[in-house]
Amino acid sequence: MLPAYADISHTFAALADPVRLAILDRLATGEATVTELAAPFEISLPAISRHLKVLERAGLITRGREAQWRPCRLEPRPFQDVAVWLEQYRSFLEDRMDRLEEFLSTLQPKEQENDDDE
Amino acid sequence: MLPAYADISHTFAALADPVRLAILDRLATGEATVTELAAPFEISLPAISRHLKVLERAGLITRGREAQWRPCRLEPRPFQDVAVWLEQYRSFLEDRMDRLEEFLSTLQPKEQENDDDE
Repeated sequence: MLPAYADISHTFAALADPVRLAILDRLATGEATVTELAAPFEISLPAISRHLKVLERAGLITRGREAQWRPCRLEPRPFQDVAVWLEQYRSFLEDRMDRLEEFLSTLQPKEQENDDDE
Repeated sequence: MLPAYADISHTFAALADPVRLAILDRLATGEATVTELAAPFEISLPAISRHLKVLERAGLITRGREAQWRPCRLEPRPFQDVAVWLEQYRSFLEDRMDRLEEFLSTLQPKEQENDDDE
């Protein structure tokens, strides 16, 4: 099922930040606490917490219930939505690649058409 | 090659709007002029032009040189960048799907384990 434009545009808004993309990248390797997520960045814990709230509202992550640690984890649904959205452009992309290959093949000199490869 | 977080976050920012997503969807079927793109929306031509400028700056579309018509067309590169970005999450998503299937299989009553399918 195709995700509605309004829903997927919220996902894209949450993804429109390099720090948030780096956080997601880290979480793809496993759960992490706010402190662990903040470590590679030269920004404050409250700033990281604000980024996590944006990711949480967009459904990209959830946070554990343990009061002190509340580890963050990725949620698959929005990633699947992006994959479904991208699928619409598959035939356009394949068509453009085909035309590029066709164009490049016209540039090859005729004498290279045999299978020799010196 | 993995697109840098800063670059791909600009692509996501351009995608973070339902009207722009609908415009891209229309362009996936072929080139169109601003007037053609504006037709399905109850918003002004200048508003559509502003959306097109955002898409153009992000490299998602280019516009023809003909002074009067300037048809818009999709450009494949940013879509490919999103595909490459999404690829990082493939093993995470597959792992989550496997665990879901495993969990669901534990819910099936034992007597359904043979191959009968009444």
